[in-house]
Amino acid sequence: MRTCLHNARILTMNPAFDEFVTGWVTIEDNRIAAVGEGPITPDGPPADETIDVNGDLILPGMINTHGHMAMTVFRGLGEDVDDRLFRYILPLERGAITPEVVRIGARLAAVEMMLGGVTTTADMYYFEQQVGRVLDKAGMRGVVGQTLADYEPPDHGSFDQGFALVDDLRDEFSGHDRITASIAPHAPYSTGPQIMARVAEYAHDNPHVRVQMHLAEMKSELEWCATHHNCRPVELVDRAGLLRPGAIMAHCLELEPGEIATLSERGITVAHNARSNAKAGRGIAPVEAMRNAGLAVGLATDGAMSGNTLDIFAQMAPASMFAKLLGGSRKCLPARQIVKMATIEGAKVLGLDGVTGSLEAGKCADLIRVSLQSPRMTPIYDIYAALVFSAIASDVRDVMIDGKWVVRNGAVLTIEQAKARRDVAQIAQQFSQKTRQIDAD
Amino acid sequence: MRTCLHNARILTMNPAFDEFVTGWVTIEDNRIAAVGEGPITPDGPPADETIDVNGDLILPGMINTHGHMAMTVFRGLGEDVDDRLFRYILPLERGAITPEVVRIGARLAAVEMMLGGVTTTADMYYFEQQVGRVLDKAGMRGVVGQTLADYEPPDHGSFDQGFALVDDLRDEFSGHDRITASIAPHAPYSTGPQIMARVAEYAHDNPHVRVQMHLAEMKSELEWCATHHNCRPVELVDRAGLLRPGAIMAHCLELEPGEIATLSERGITVAHNARSNAKAGRGIAPVEAMRNAGLAVGLATDGAMSGNTLDIFAQMAPASMFAKLLGGSRKCLPARQIVKMATIEGAKVLGLDGVTGSLEAGKCADLIRVSLQSPRMTPIYDIYAALVFSAIASDVRDVMIDGKWVVRNGAVLTIEQAKARRDVAQIAQQFSQKTRQIDAD
Repeated sequence: MRTCLHNARILTMNPAFDEFVTGWVTIEDNRIAAVGEGPITPDGPPADETIDVNGDLILPGMINTHGHMAMTVFRGLGEDVDDRLFRYILPLERGAITPEVVRIGARLAAVEMMLGGVTTTADMYYFEQQVGRVLDKAGMRGVVGQTLADYEPPDHGSFDQGFALVDDLRDEFSGHDRITASIAPHAPYSTGPQIMARVAEYAHDNPHVRVQMHLAEMKSELEWCATHHNCRPVELVDRAGLLRPGAIMAHCLELEPGEIATLSERGITVAHNARSNAKAGRGIAPVEAMRNAGLAVGLATDGAMSGNTLDIFAQMAPASMFAKLLGGSRKCLPARQIVKMATIEGAKVLGLDGVTGSLEAGKCADLIRVSLQSPRMTPIYDIYAALVFSAIASDVRDVMIDGKWVVRNGAVLTIEQAKARRDVAQIAQQFSQKTRQIDAD
Repeated sequence: MRTCLHNARILTMNPAFDEFVTGWVTIEDNRIAAVGEGPITPDGPPADETIDVNGDLILPGMINTHGHMAMTVFRGLGEDVDDRLFRYILPLERGAITPEVVRIGARLAAVEMMLGGVTTTADMYYFEQQVGRVLDKAGMRGVVGQTLADYEPPDHGSFDQGFALVDDLRDEFSGHDRITASIAPHAPYSTGPQIMARVAEYAHDNPHVRVQMHLAEMKSELEWCATHHNCRPVELVDRAGLLRPGAIMAHCLELEPGEIATLSERGITVAHNARSNAKAGRGIAPVEAMRNAGLAVGLATDGAMSGNTLDIFAQMAPASMFAKLLGGSRKCLPARQIVKMATIEGAKVLGLDGVTGSLEAGKCADLIRVSLQSPRMTPIYDIYAALVFSAIASDVRDVMIDGKWVVRNGAVLTIEQAKARRDVAQIAQQFSQKTRQIDAD
C-alpha cells in the first residue's frame, strides 16, 4: 500500500527543522517512504491513494507525554473546590472505578485525542490493561502505565497485587507494535521509598517496561518528604534508585537548580502539564531551565479532571505564555520550540523518537493534516506561531497513525464517537448523584 | 418578526445567574421578548421562525473590551523579536497603513470575531471611521476609538488633525444603533499631560464619546512617568482629569493597591488582555483585586499582532489560570466569574450593560449558540467550566446580533469570508517584502 499526500505545506520537525511551503509525503505500508519539496512527487511507483491536501499543513502527530485517559468521567467535577480530590474523587474512585468505567472513560479520551491530532499518548491509571486495549482498538500509539499506590486504589489492595497487574500488562502487550507497557508508582508520598526501590528493581529486570511517575508536583509533597524523610522529593526518589535513564517524570515544578542537574545526569525525561499545574494554582515548571540543562521536556494534558481537554493545541499557547511570564520576555520558549516539544521532543520523552515525532523516511507514518483556511490562521508570517497561538483542535482534518487513517475530514474512523460520548454521560449522571450524597452527608 | 429558539440549554447571565437545562428564548424584531424554562414556549403569538437548537447552549454574545481590528494584517509578524514594535510595526504603520488597509484588516477581524461568538467589540486605531463602517456592515456592535498619539501615526501629523478625525467619527456615527464613537488617547507616554487634559475637556463637551486608553501596561511606562513627571501613570492620568467615569482603561497591570482604589473611586472600567500581556512577558493584571474593589473588568483580545486571535474563548481559560497562579489556589477567579466577565461585565465595561451582555426581556437580541456535542464537552458537571476550559471558538454555531443572524451553521452571512482572507494575505505578502528589506538594511 502506497499513499501520496501532495500540495501540502510541510513541517518535518527533523533535526534541521526542514519545512516546505509546497511539498509532499509518501507513505508505504506503515512507514514514511519520503518527504520532499515541490508541487508533485518525483518519479516513483504509482500510489494506491493520492490526496491533494489543498495547501493544508502536514506535520508529525502530536505526543501527549502524560495523562489519565479514564478520568474523562470526572471532567469538570468540583472545579473550584480546593479539597475536591479527597472530597469527591478518591471516594468515587474507590467505590465506582471498575474495568468497564476505565474502558468507557479511556474510549472517549481516545476519540478526543485523535480528533485533536494526538497520535501517541502516555497514560497511568488503574485497570491499565483496559487502556491498552482501547488504544489498540483506536489505532493509537501509547505507553500505558499500571499505577501503584498506597491509598486503597480501586484495583489493588496490596502492592503485591499491584505488581501482579504490571506483570499482566507487560505480558499482554509484549511485542505489540504500538503499545508499550509501563510501571507507574504514583508519587513519592503515595508509594514510599521501599516500593520505589522495588519498582527500580522491577524496571532493571524488565528493561522494556518504562517507569512513569508524578514528581515534585506541589508544596505538600515537599512538606511530606521533609517531615517523613528529611529530604526533598528528587533526593528521595534518587536514593530509591528510581532516577533511572528513560524514567518519565510528570510535573517537575518544585525543582532547585541542583535538582535539575541531577535529573539531567540521570537521563530522566519530563512531562510538562502546563494547564493542569496552573489550574491548580501550583505554579509554573522551570521548562527553559530544564531544557537548557539538556532534559527532554514534552507537553502533556494530564487527566481531564485536572486539565479538562486532551489535545496538545490547548497546551501550546499556555506553555509558551507561562515561560514568557516566568522569564519576563516575549523571547522565552518561542513557538518553534513549543512545536518541537509537542512532536519530536515529546517522542524523545517517551523513548519513541526513533519511531515517531518527525516526518523522516523510515519512521512510522504518524502525521496530521491541519487546515490553514480559517480567519484565525490568516495571514501566516510564521507557521510555528500560527500553530501555537492561533490553531485549535478543530483545525485538525485528518490523522494517520502507523500508516492508517484514524480520522478523516474531522471524523474518527476507529471508535463510534456518539456511543463514546453517551456512555460517559451516563456514568457522569451516576457520579452526580453520588456527589450530591457526599454534599448532603 | 418573531423568532423562537427552543430545546436549548440556557445561560442568561442575568443578576441571579439563572440557567435552564431545557429552555427557550423568543425574539421580537431586535429585542429579546422573553426567556424561560421548559421544553416549549408557553402560549404567545406564533413565531415567524422556530428553531430547535437540539440541546445546544444559548448564551449572551461575548464582549471584547479592547482591540485593534485592523492589526490582523500584522498577525504573527516578528513573534519572538523583542524590539519588533520599533523594528517592524511602527515603520510599517507609518509607511503602509492607509484607510484601505484598515478596512481590509478590520473586515477579517469582524469575520473572526463573529465566527468566535463576539457580538460587541471595542476598538482603537487609525482611520477609525473605516472600522466603524466595517462593524456597521458586519452587523456587529462596537465602540470605535480614534487613536491620538505623538509618534507620527499614519493618519494625523498633529493633535489638531487627530481631534478633527474624532469629530468626523463622532458625526458619522451620531445616533447609530450599534456603533458608538470614542476618543482614544494612546497612552500616558505617547500623549502627555496636556493632550490628556484636552481629551478630558473633549469628553466633557461630548458626553456620548467614550474615552479608551492604554494604562499601566508595562515597566517602561512606569519609568517614563517617573523620569518625565516624577509620578506613576495613574497619578499622571488623574492629574490630567482623564480618570472620568466610564473611561475604559486597557491592561492595568502595574497597579498598587491605592491606585486600584483610585480607579474604583473615579468610576473607571478595565479591559483585561490576559494573553497579550502574558505573551509579551509583562505579567498578570491583578484582576481579582480590581474586581474586589468594585471595578468592572472585561476580557479582551488586544490586536492580533499582540494576542493573535480575536475570540473570547481563547481568553477565558488563560484569564482564569493566570488568576489562579497569582493567587496560588484553584478557587481564584472561578469559571462562572470568567463567563460573567466575558458577557455582562464586559458590557458594563463598555457602558452597554443596559443594551447587551445578558439574556433578559427588553435587551437587544445579541446571543450565540454553542454546540455541546464534542468529546471535549462531555460530560458536563459544570456548564461554566465546560465553557471556560473546554469550549473553543469553532463550537460556535450561530450568532445573532440586534435580532439579526450574522452567523448560521458556522458561516458568516454579512461579509464574504474568502475575500476577507485573500485581501489580508495579499497585504501580508507586501509587508513580508518590507520586513525583509528592513532586515537587510
